[in-house]
Amino acid sequence: MKLHGYFRSSAAYRVRIALNLKGLSATHVPHHLRKGEQRAPAYLAINPQGLVPTLENDAGAILTQSLAIIEWLDETRPTPPLLPADPLRRARVRAFALAIACDIHPVQNSKVLARLRELGLPEERVTEWAAWANREGLMACETLIKDEPGPFCFGDAPTLADLCLVPQLGNARRFGVDVSAYPRLLKAEAAAKALPAFAEAAPERQADAE
Amino acid sequence: MKLHGYFRSSAAYRVRIALNLKGLSATHVPHHLRKGEQRAPAYLAINPQGLVPTLENDAGAILTQSLAIIEWLDETRPTPPLLPADPLRRARVRAFALAIACDIHPVQNSKVLARLRELGLPEERVTEWAAWANREGLMACETLIKDEPGPFCFGDAPTLADLCLVPQLGNARRFGVDVSAYPRLLKAEAAAKALPAFAEAAPERQADAE
Repeated sequence: MKLHGYFRSSAAYRVRIALNLKGLSATHVPHHLRKGEQRAPAYLAINPQGLVPTLENDAGAILTQSLAIIEWLDETRPTPPLLPADPLRRARVRAFALAIACDIHPVQNSKVLARLRELGLPEERVTEWAAWANREGLMACETLIKDEPGPFCFGDAPTLADLCLVPQLGNARRFGVDVSAYPRLLKAEAAAKALPAFAEAAPERQADAE
Repeated sequence: MKLHGYFRSSAAYRVRIALNLKGLSATHVPHHLRKGEQRAPAYLAINPQGLVPTLENDAGAILTQSLAIIEWLDETRPTPPLLPADPLRRARVRAFALAIACDIHPVQNSKVLARLRELGLPEERVTEWAAWANREGLMACETLIKDEPGPFCFGDAPTLADLCLVPQLGNARRFGVDVSAYPRLLKAEAAAKALPAFAEAAPERQADAE
């Protein structure tokens, strides 16, 4: 398999963790987002959104959108599971993941921040925008799992929720957010980062890291 | 069941369509987003993000995030299915839905637009922002299904993709986007809107419509 990504993309990071947890290897194909490589015609031909990640499976089929890729991995390689078996628990895990993947990440991704700069916003207001999206969203996430004993977001093994949380906390720190406001999230992050699958997927461990 | 929503919320609209397709009824509890009713403490207690929709099932369990709710409905009431059986096709349908639910809708929702106004943007620039998010995203969606014969987004029956598309096209028009640039999406929309499940879920048919 081939994973088109970028070391700092938190959506690609989610998929790197999933591949590691499933014991799968992939050839990593980096696309430098700050240099606009994701807008190259050859890449747009496989990912019309011009976003990373894209997964090419062993048969050459193209999969886009990190959560769709992860659900596909989980359906085709069920062990270890990334979603609980109970439908209501699955819904809780997915809702937490979507609270990050829909309501935090896209509001602070590089495309939106570039648009804010085009509108004339100075750099400190752009960073404050990104910090705001992270703060509001992570506080809601903290509440969503406040009654979950953990240590992971949901139970004693990582799920799709942790795959979304760990990269997002990295973004939050990069934008200057004081993450000590989210003790339950930090507990899940610590449990996750102790696993090699998470540690080896970290941005600074990737070949294209700067 | 109880569905907390708002007539104009495209995320709530997706769930209304899903309930109708599954032949399920729910008591609709409107929360007026422009009046900020979604930030009332009693509502935040069930939905810490302060977003609609929220579904309370018959046992009183709380479900949030439209796509998580729809996946739960599909897992617990499998007929008619809202996702194909084949894992790769499921991934394609989910990727299309996420291209809307992650990368268009949250970038142009009322919370983000309110933030732009707070930053001092005049109303025409705010509308242009929302139109931009819709135009870019819908063009990618058009490409994602260009080789799908249809008439729905994926095949001859509605899926999660159509549940996301129809409300989003409504938003796009409201923001002045020329949707004639997306003939394949309009074909899917026409097929969907011919079904009572979609027609009866439309914003203008809701009790709280203004």
